[in-house]
Formats: sequence, structure tokens, C-alpha cells
Amino acid sequence: MMRTGNAVVAQSGGPTAVINNSVCGIVQGWQKHGFAGKLYGALFGITGVLTEKFIDLTAQDPKAVENLRHTPGAALGSCRYKVKTEEDYQQILDAFKKHDIRYFFYVGGNDSMDTADKVHQLAVKQNYEMCVIGVPKTVDNDLPFTDHCPGYGSAAKYLATTVMNTGLDLKSLITKNRVLILEAMGRNTGWLAAATALAKRQGNDPPHLIYLPETPFHRESFLKDVERVYKELNHVYVVVSEGIVDEKGQYVFAEASKDSFGHAQLGGLADSLKSMVEGELALKTRCVIPSTIQRSSMYLASKVDAEEAYLVGLEAVNLVAREKSGLMVTLDRVEEDYLCRAGSVELNRVSNVEKKLPREWITESGTFVTNEFLRYARPLIRGEVVIPMVDGLPDYCCFV
Amino acid sequence: MMRTGNAVVAQSGGPTAVINNSVCGIVQGWQKHGFAGKLYGALFGITGVLTEKFIDLTAQDPKAVENLRHTPGAALGSCRYKVKTEEDYQQILDAFKKHDIRYFFYVGGNDSMDTADKVHQLAVKQNYEMCVIGVPKTVDNDLPFTDHCPGYGSAAKYLATTVMNTGLDLKSLITKNRVLILEAMGRNTGWLAAATALAKRQGNDPPHLIYLPETPFHRESFLKDVERVYKELNHVYVVVSEGIVDEKGQYVFAEASKDSFGHAQLGGLADSLKSMVEGELALKTRCVIPSTIQRSSMYLASKVDAEEAYLVGLEAVNLVAREKSGLMVTLDRVEEDYLCRAGSVELNRVSNVEKKLPREWITESGTFVTNEFLRYARPLIRGEVVIPMVDGLPDYCCFV
Repeated sequence: MMRTGNAVVAQSGGPTAVINNSVCGIVQGWQKHGFAGKLYGALFGITGVLTEKFIDLTAQDPKAVENLRHTPGAALGSCRYKVKTEEDYQQILDAFKKHDIRYFFYVGGNDSMDTADKVHQLAVKQNYEMCVIGVPKTVDNDLPFTDHCPGYGSAAKYLATTVMNTGLDLKSLITKNRVLILEAMGRNTGWLAAATALAKRQGNDPPHLIYLPETPFHRESFLKDVERVYKELNHVYVVVSEGIVDEKGQYVFAEASKDSFGHAQLGGLADSLKSMVEGELALKTRCVIPSTIQRSSMYLASKVDAEEAYLVGLEAVNLVAREKSGLMVTLDRVEEDYLCRAGSVELNRVSNVEKKLPREWITESGTFVTNEFLRYARPLIRGEVVIPMVDGLPDYCCFV
Repeated sequence: MMRTGNAVVAQSGGPTAVINNSVCGIVQGWQKHGFAGKLYGALFGITGVLTEKFIDLTAQDPKAVENLRHTPGAALGSCRYKVKTEEDYQQILDAFKKHDIRYFFYVGGNDSMDTADKVHQLAVKQNYEMCVIGVPKTVDNDLPFTDHCPGYGSAAKYLATTVMNTGLDLKSLITKNRVLILEAMGRNTGWLAAATALAKRQGNDPPHLIYLPETPFHRESFLKDVERVYKELNHVYVVVSEGIVDEKGQYVFAEASKDSFGHAQLGGLADSLKSMVEGELALKTRCVIPSTIQRSSMYLASKVDAEEAYLVGLEAVNLVAREKSGLMVTLDRVEEDYLCRAGSVELNRVSNVEKKLPREWITESGTFVTNEFLRYARPLIRGEVVIPMVDGLPDYCCFV
């Protein structure tokens, strides 16, 4: 069989600046390989499979497809729907059977790789011949077995540049606000917050203090750190990861609600630290909360990242062309500074595993990162992406 | 006299992405005109004059000066020190006399134009021959007699692009978070929040609702608006100006503290609206608070804005070369779409006057802007600025 039948690509979880590059890579790879079937895009992730809402990507204007390479957000739509029940999985496979889908490309993070793996296992069990390939995507950079995740480099470049810019603003304007707290994303891992260290070119450059989920947060040490830097420099730039935890492993600030995967929904952390600093040290503090800006800022996308996001999409098609299934595409660093090639790993080794920032890449004090981390991260933010502009604003492509 | 003696340039108030373009224009204009004296930069605004902390800008590497054209923050340092007492003004003039300063360029907003005017008046009164020129700068765009203020176009371009990017993220990801509230700067005027309307290319594009200080904020109407849009689109993008007021003219959310000009320090507004929406409508809401990112994002600076910021600096020198004093440089729009020329206006007509967004440029509902506003704003965000990059991050120049 194979070489016949149709394909589905779906996007899952939080978008990144470059996630649509992977879709573009899959579409163009599919066409390059000359598959006879149609390549559908499922709308709004796996919910689009469950409800059989597909668009024919092979029928789109090639210009629109090419436009995906500089469009943030999830152009096919995405979701955080957690596939849990056997009924759900059967419904997915039934939809695939109904539409003769023999190839499934799932662009996502840890949870999505778990979903992809279970779809793959079920197909094997029911002797339905199909190829399931996971395509890595997450600004959080927490997938194992890949050197890094597409999406991370661009968010890292955005955050480091933002620290440089707002750091100049903080340093140069003498006002009462002498402390700035920037809240970075990255649920349980500090990769994003750590990347702001790239902004520091000289000793006193921001950021001055970085708080990561990998080392426990002590309120008293935090206040002492801020006070010490303030006495030395007369201003303090703090970066804090949204997922920092105390010694008991509890989130320092967590709202009561949880998302559909059961993860605590974070928010308000920077404000709670601001209250500490203003209350205990009497230093006026400003909060900068980029929130989804950091995962959608195409104008600060890294060229390396955008090209790799395209590459992992292309490689996913190469894998199914060789009838591979149950794999996630990886990026394997073959030259430290810098070359990455596409590889692959079994989905079941990836699913639900979270790769944390190694403790040895965090300084002993726990408030900065080592040169080894910087050597790792620096190549990932290189190069700029040119975005076609119309009337001073970007020209994007979105299917939803 | 004149043509002899030295000059001082100082930067005041919140920096903009392009404020250093004005300093660059002044330095290069000074050199082009062949003034014999030195051009000093006062460090940290007027406090640098009071404490006689100057650097010789004419002695700097021309490359560093040229680098100012793409560096955000205030490269000379800035402050919010309010010059109030006669002693302060005398001290400023005495510092000028001591260093034979015959030209004073003050780059700033409303408060700074008042300071510049008073220095000018005192010099006249004491028969100290000198030229004082105000150079407009403010992301708030609230200076009168000038079509717009250098700094506004870049912040406007940043905010509109950010609404497009985070709007795609919001629309494309189906999660519980279906409402997004972006908090824009702009103390008492809605120019910045209004500029996000440029992001809307089609009917359902974000932003969906814009709340401005020029029209009173009603809690009930706000909730009804959000509910209506949610029912129609399944997501809601709200932009709110930090300075919105209720029917009594009170800030909707204001912390107790005030800055040194007696202005209320705002913050936490988006969070308080989020509480309203979550409490009354049970819609999970995300806050995006770009804060100082919006006034320091050189990578989204408008080329038109950067060039005009340079132009007003250059024109300030042209004015003193013609022995003018007591003036602020203006931008006069001579072609609607689009040509601006430099003009000037008496400082005393500008100082402490705040130009609000005209009521007729706000829709009747009070939650959007008219096409007339869009025609005004669109040319101001045109064009991009190329920033020299080193290792994936910008190369900047800062003297403090």
C-alpha cells in the first residue's frame, strides 16, 4: 500500500512565531514527493479531526502557503483539548479511516506527542496501515531527545531583545521606578527566562537576576538579591519564569483554576513579586508582562529557528515517504557553533517527558545561567526574517 | 554675540524608540552649521544641568553618534525631575553662564516645554543672550500645535503589530482564555490605544473594543460590549488606555502613589478589568501588558517616525543658527498622505497644554475610532528601520 491515501496535518497547543513554517514544510514536502492523495489541514487541532473539519491544503494558492513562513499564530487553528478516552481515540481513527487518511502529521509539544503515539498504537492494533509523525513545536523548549524545539529560538530572541530595549529604558530614565520585573513564559522549565541572559553583553547589563523553576524560590533571598543589585547599580532588572516554585514545589503564585490538561493556570506572579519589593524594600517596581507577544513576535523571529521549523516539517514527509511511523522528528546538533540535522526518535520515548534546564547550566546562586548555556542558546537566535509589509504592517496568511 | 559659545542638549521624560534620533540630528546639525563651540550632552536630563554633569558630544566617535539612530532608551539619560523653584531655575541659568552655554536644546514633552520656556524667560529677564529650543518627543502624542509628536508613530506601529500578532494567537488557539485585554500607555490621552485600530484590515480583525480616556468608561457598557463580541466571534480583543476615567473623571484604576509631577501612577488596570470580566461574565481573560516595551521597540520603529525625530533635531539647530529662541519645533503636515515639514511655535503656547484625541475621531459608541483618525495615523507608521545586529541581537549606543 502506501503512496496512496490522504494525509492530515494538525497544530496543537500554544502557537509559536514559526509554527506555520512547519505546516509550510509539510505542504511543500508533500508536493515535492509527489504523493497522489490530498493533504488536509485539520482545523483547530485534534478537535478538527474529531469533528472532521478539514481544508484541502494542496488546493491552496501556493502564495498563501508560502506566506505561512512569516505568519505567527496557528494558521490552521489549534486547541488544548486533551484526548483522554478510548472513545475519543477510536473516533479519531474512524475519521481517518472514513477519509482514507494514511498519514498524520501532528505539530505540537509533550501532550501532543502522547496523543500522536496513542493514535499510532491504536492503528497498529487495528491493522490500519498509516504513518503517524510528531513534529516538535514549543517555545518552552521542554521536549527531550531533540537539541532544542522549533519556536524556542524566536521566543528567546524576542525576550533577549526586549530585555535589552526595556533595560536601556530602565537605566536611562531616573524615576521612582527603579526595579523592573519581566515575567517570562515556560510552565515548568526555565529555558525561556534563561534565554534573556543573552542580552547581557557587559557586566552591568540587564538582566541582573533570573529566577527559574529548576531552583527553589526563597522570598528572603530574592529580596536580598534585589537590594544588593539596587545598592550597586541604582536599578534592578529581574526576569522571572511564570512557573517558579517554593521549596515545597508549590507555585509561588498560582490561580485556583487549572487548564484542561490539569496544569495550573499561572498569572499575576510579577505583581505578587512587585508587592514584595515595594512592601519590604520600598522600591517602586514596574511589571512587564509580554504574555502571548513572546510567542507571536514574527518580526523578531530567528532565521535559524524559522528555517529549522520548516525543516522538521519537510523531514516529517521524508519519514512517511520511507513508511516510517510512531516517530517524532528531532533536531540533532552536529556542530556546536553551529549545524543541526533532522533526526527522529520514537514517540513513546518523548510523550509526557519534560526536559528541564540542566542544574549545571544554572549558577550556584541560582539567579543566573552559565556560559555553557549561553554557548548552547546563542546560535539559536541568529539571523532575521524579512516580513512582507503592507502600509507599515505585516502581511499574514491565516486559514481560520 | 552668537555663533560663539557652547550648547547643551538634554533629554527629558519617558524615552521613545526614536528619541536618540533627535540628539543625533542636533549633533550632526551642529557640526554641519560649523558652530565653533562645544555641544554638550547633559546627563539624565535637567538634573545633569543642575549638577553640571556634561559629556562633550562633539568629541564622540561619529560612528557612535550615527549609532544613536537605532538605539532606544535615552542615550544621554533622562529624568522626571520637576523644576519648580526659582532657585532651581537660577541654578540652571548659572550653570549655563558658567560654561558659556548659549544654546539649549531640550528634547521632551509638555512638562519639559514648560521648563524650557521658563529658562528662556529667565535668560531674557537677566539679559543673558541665549537660544532655547524645545524639541518635541512623546509616545503619548499629546503636544499641541504639531501634527504629531516624534515617538508616536513607532509606538503606534509597535502596538498595531502586537495586536495583529497576539490577535492571531488568540483567534487560532481554542482554550478557556477567550478574552484578551491589552493595556496601552498614554496617561490622559487615547492616541496610543487608538492606533491599535490600524491592525484591523477586515471586519472581524482585532481589536474589537478600544477604551479611551476621552470618553467616560461605564462598567456595565463594558461588560455588555465584551459579551456581545464574545457571542458573535467566540473571542474578544480589548485594548484599554491606562488613563481611562469614569463619569466623574476619576481614574478607573489608580494606585495611591503619584509621580514627581503630581500625576497619578497608573497600573493594574488590565487586571482589574480582567476580574470584572471573569467575575461577571465567567470568561477567562488574559492580560498583555507591554509597558515600556511599547516605547523602546526599535525593531518596530516606523521609518517615517525615525526620520522625523532626526528632522526636528536638525531643525532645532537651524533655528538657533537664525538666532531664534523660545520656540518648539513642530511637524506641519502639508500633504495629507503624506508630507510633513518642520515648523515652530512659541514655547509658552505649548507648555502644559495636552492635546486630546478629538471626540469626532471616536465613534459614537465610544469604543472605536473613525476613518478620519485612521487616515491621520496610517502614514505615521510607514517604513521600517534596519538595525545593525551582532550575534542575533541589536548593536546599540548609550552614554550612561
